[in-house]
Amino acid sequence: MYQSFDEASAPAASSDRVQALLRELKSRRLKGFLVPHSDQHQNEFLPPADERLAWLTGFAGSAGIAIVTDKGSALFVDGRYILQAPEQVDTSLFEVLQVPQAKPSSWIKETLVRGNAVGYDPALHTIKEIDRLTKTLGAAGIRLNPVADNPIDKLWGSDRPKPPSAPIYLQPLEFAGRSPAEKIAQVQKTLAEDEQDAVLLTAPDSICWLFNFRGGDIKHTPVALTFAIVPASGRPTLFIDPGKVGDNVHGALSGFIDIAESEALEEKLKALAEGGAKVRLDPDQVSMRFARILEENGTKFVAGDDPCTLPKAIKTRAEIEGARAAHLRDGVAMARFLAWLDEVSESGREDEVSAAMKVEDFRRQSGQLKDISFDTIAASGPHGALVHYRPLNATKRVLDKNSLFLIDSGGQYVDGTTDITRTVAVGKPTAEMKRHYGLVLKAYIAVASARFPKGTRGQDIDPYARRPLWEAGLDFDHGTGHGVGSYLSVHEGPQRLSRLSTEELKPGMILSNEPGYYRKGKYGIRLENLILVTPLEKIEGGEREMMGFETLTLVPFDRRLIDPKQFEPSELAWLNDYHARVRREIEPLVLSDDRPWLRHATAKIG
Amino acid sequence: MYQSFDEASAPAASSDRVQALLRELKSRRLKGFLVPHSDQHQNEFLPPADERLAWLTGFAGSAGIAIVTDKGSALFVDGRYILQAPEQVDTSLFEVLQVPQAKPSSWIKETLVRGNAVGYDPALHTIKEIDRLTKTLGAAGIRLNPVADNPIDKLWGSDRPKPPSAPIYLQPLEFAGRSPAEKIAQVQKTLAEDEQDAVLLTAPDSICWLFNFRGGDIKHTPVALTFAIVPASGRPTLFIDPGKVGDNVHGALSGFIDIAESEALEEKLKALAEGGAKVRLDPDQVSMRFARILEENGTKFVAGDDPCTLPKAIKTRAEIEGARAAHLRDGVAMARFLAWLDEVSESGREDEVSAAMKVEDFRRQSGQLKDISFDTIAASGPHGALVHYRPLNATKRVLDKNSLFLIDSGGQYVDGTTDITRTVAVGKPTAEMKRHYGLVLKAYIAVASARFPKGTRGQDIDPYARRPLWEAGLDFDHGTGHGVGSYLSVHEGPQRLSRLSTEELKPGMILSNEPGYYRKGKYGIRLENLILVTPLEKIEGGEREMMGFETLTLVPFDRRLIDPKQFEPSELAWLNDYHARVRREIEPLVLSDDRPWLRHATAKIG
Repeated sequence: MYQSFDEASAPAASSDRVQALLRELKSRRLKGFLVPHSDQHQNEFLPPADERLAWLTGFAGSAGIAIVTDKGSALFVDGRYILQAPEQVDTSLFEVLQVPQAKPSSWIKETLVRGNAVGYDPALHTIKEIDRLTKTLGAAGIRLNPVADNPIDKLWGSDRPKPPSAPIYLQPLEFAGRSPAEKIAQVQKTLAEDEQDAVLLTAPDSICWLFNFRGGDIKHTPVALTFAIVPASGRPTLFIDPGKVGDNVHGALSGFIDIAESEALEEKLKALAEGGAKVRLDPDQVSMRFARILEENGTKFVAGDDPCTLPKAIKTRAEIEGARAAHLRDGVAMARFLAWLDEVSESGREDEVSAAMKVEDFRRQSGQLKDISFDTIAASGPHGALVHYRPLNATKRVLDKNSLFLIDSGGQYVDGTTDITRTVAVGKPTAEMKRHYGLVLKAYIAVASARFPKGTRGQDIDPYARRPLWEAGLDFDHGTGHGVGSYLSVHEGPQRLSRLSTEELKPGMILSNEPGYYRKGKYGIRLENLILVTPLEKIEGGEREMMGFETLTLVPFDRRLIDPKQFEPSELAWLNDYHARVRREIEPLVLSDDRPWLRHATAKIG
Repeated sequence: MYQSFDEASAPAASSDRVQALLRELKSRRLKGFLVPHSDQHQNEFLPPADERLAWLTGFAGSAGIAIVTDKGSALFVDGRYILQAPEQVDTSLFEVLQVPQAKPSSWIKETLVRGNAVGYDPALHTIKEIDRLTKTLGAAGIRLNPVADNPIDKLWGSDRPKPPSAPIYLQPLEFAGRSPAEKIAQVQKTLAEDEQDAVLLTAPDSICWLFNFRGGDIKHTPVALTFAIVPASGRPTLFIDPGKVGDNVHGALSGFIDIAESEALEEKLKALAEGGAKVRLDPDQVSMRFARILEENGTKFVAGDDPCTLPKAIKTRAEIEGARAAHLRDGVAMARFLAWLDEVSESGREDEVSAAMKVEDFRRQSGQLKDISFDTIAASGPHGALVHYRPLNATKRVLDKNSLFLIDSGGQYVDGTTDITRTVAVGKPTAEMKRHYGLVLKAYIAVASARFPKGTRGQDIDPYARRPLWEAGLDFDHGTGHGVGSYLSVHEGPQRLSRLSTEELKPGMILSNEPGYYRKGKYGIRLENLILVTPLEKIEGGEREMMGFETLTLVPFDRRLIDPKQFEPSELAWLNDYHARVRREIEPLVLSDDRPWLRHATAKIG
């Protein structure tokens, strides 16, 4: 299935739906209700059956929360969606506000009064979220009441999509590099050290990683919607819709875990709580529903990180080798795409959507693409300045001449997940475009070539990317990089390169390195490769245990946008080494037609 | 009074003292007792009457805590003191352990058993400290009991020094730049916004800043030991020993505050609590004693930062002009010192103590030195590698030939506080010394020349200093810089350049910039200037509101240690600009004898 370029249209029925919801709330003695963009697993991308926020408001973005009250309603979105949201929702029903400048809790306090109660579905909010909100609203005498059944589910009729039910399949040890038994033992060691009896896992990628299987319940992310309980000793239980588990997979998994229906989870938690077990929940990840089940049955949960998150982030040797192989394959597809683009970009016939389809095509031609890893961002000229722009048939631009084209895309392969952004010249770039491109490339190289000691955190490296832009009085308003899974989520924690990331970088972690610069109304520049944290050989005269990055992505940067005078000799050396490596590794794998392009694109600069 | 170079000798009586303390604890049914290096104001430097830890253990360092139990005792110190402490204390009485690797709470849990009680003096520990410890020990069934009177004060006989009683004096508006009335109004605005009725201030520098006075109770820091309560409206009350307030000062202060004896504070807090007032305490700064007084009288305190900390850190125009004047004066003293040093350093007659006395001498010759701002660090050769080394007559080194000499010193002037470190060659430096010096100087310049947008925090700049060292596989184990007061504490918050500082840098803040490198057993290099956060003119083509640093300190770096080949052209340009400025500003103020030295020291490099 290819990416869709048509946006879900705003529902004409939004007003009726809000009215029906308000009647339902009244019957429950609630003054308001929270409608988050969320599901029971806190997925970033939701199955259609969980698009309650879109159903109610028409807002199709990937993050936001509506608050419906009998005194008026509001939709809170972040900066990415502040232009799109008012176009999609009926603003006579919903006041659209931007977080973090506007705060849902402040809005509720201003809208409602002491003694009012606001309802929420405890399955859709994390423990931490509800704890914070309860505290803030409580100070104003407003109660936050969990509902046993979500009123939207009651109102959403026969047109509600079915929950996803894709079959799961095993991820071979050849690619995973570590058996479920070993991973389970590692999690159990953590539980024993922390003196806990069990952990409840609700993050799909944690569970898929732990038991070495994959699924198809979420678009572009090969995960299944499941839950799991891992006891400190003994067999874990996987809670999953039986229809998703074929006989062969069942047989293989049964060797080391028990498999139960999803509905059995609540009973299992009850039993644990009644027995006084110390059950670990990650308050940032697990929904309030499960904390409440434990508490209602006599035992408060124990707060602790999801114990899969960190080991999952530190890739095995097999996953690292897989990543290298996936990036070679992806590099070939990107080289073919960029060669094609150079040929057609000024023709006036190609647009953002056709380019996005073409890059997906080249990846599919590898014969090994499982899916793209997220909806391709293909942004021409001024669209490039909208950081989270997605091309749509309704709004697409033909590729602007004498401007910049930004394309951010990736693939899911069985051996690895890719994510790459290139910005290329269409026609003749201006001196200003080249200067800005140069600053972003300097930012990229500063991170890629960094050496840093053990203990360094993402926030210590983020400034490396900002410095060249800061020198010019510029900046970019997103993090420098995110963690990437191994044939899993293209956004994974805990590692990040960001001003807020206190997580230590460890050898084996994969991150994106993607500084940018966005000239409002004109163009956007982002350059992104995936990089792998690696231990470094001892530096001569050095004393500390050092690390650095291996660049995994193998795709040339656009030479037409590079003015060698803007770069230090050490930066040019890095760039020429990288291009030489790209040519050496990719050339044998592309058809002879594309070789002249590749040779030109990787020729020495400066 | 000049710096003292003789260490308090370890008490022969330590064993008797521990025995007496244990008997006292037994009579109070306590199994253990906490003896921190602390006073009621959480001062970094203590008046002698508060040196309980030294009295009990013999340990003379500036940070540490002893835990005495009937099952054995331990002294916890940080890395700075891990070599010194075992030499000063009787290790048959105290096991010396290093934090943070060893944790007092873990040690207590291993040493004592469920049901035991440990005593502490609530006046000597912050609220946060005790909250944390109570929680950790509570989980192991060990109670933490406040004592009404400190058993050490009972045991410490007639040789206990008197509390300090230096008179306070006004800090003229000419130097403070803002009247107490304006500052009080600012604090009261904060209280009103946060819906609090009053704040209790216990930090001496906050109180001195707020009311524009200074004192002499702490060595090298011109503060008085006082408390204050500022109500949300109406007159603040200063709680102070009446002997410290002369008639004139009393008259001036009485214009806007009430003055009461220190003993009246407890009654005043009781009255506030009984009236249900919301009293703000800074849990990181205020001692548990005061939280308990409020709570015992019916009202829990409200947690909030000391509202003086941030406004105090943002210097007024007068304080900034004062800082520039103080640094000119200090620069003259340092130039004279360095010229003297170059003349005598290889004579074999000068040592660390004579050099430290000499630098104090040159500062005193300005006729305007109130005090040095901390005990001078003068470290020759291998002593330089001990980050917090202080010269003592008993252990001083004659200046090592063909090595490096590090001197870290500063002055308290009525218009500003200075703090500067220079590392200079004595004889012929090796190539390795020059390379390391060059790396530290590059680190210094990277910070000094940084440009950064509004919102940048100390931790975003700290990596600028590390990068040149990291490239070489090296690092330094301290922060890059600390805040500095205006004729106040040489270490002040909240601003810092450190991997842990989330505080935003704001124009008007003064910080040190002091990267270093320490070659164990050989030498230490540290280069330190004070820098002022300043708004920048708009950068051409720039979009963001930017800031940078003005270097306040005006003292040459040692040209003999600078190999121009190690530097980028932009780094050399910064250095030559700085040296030209030093020459331009300092030359007219030094005697003609020292001018040839200054001209040579600031001659163009590269």
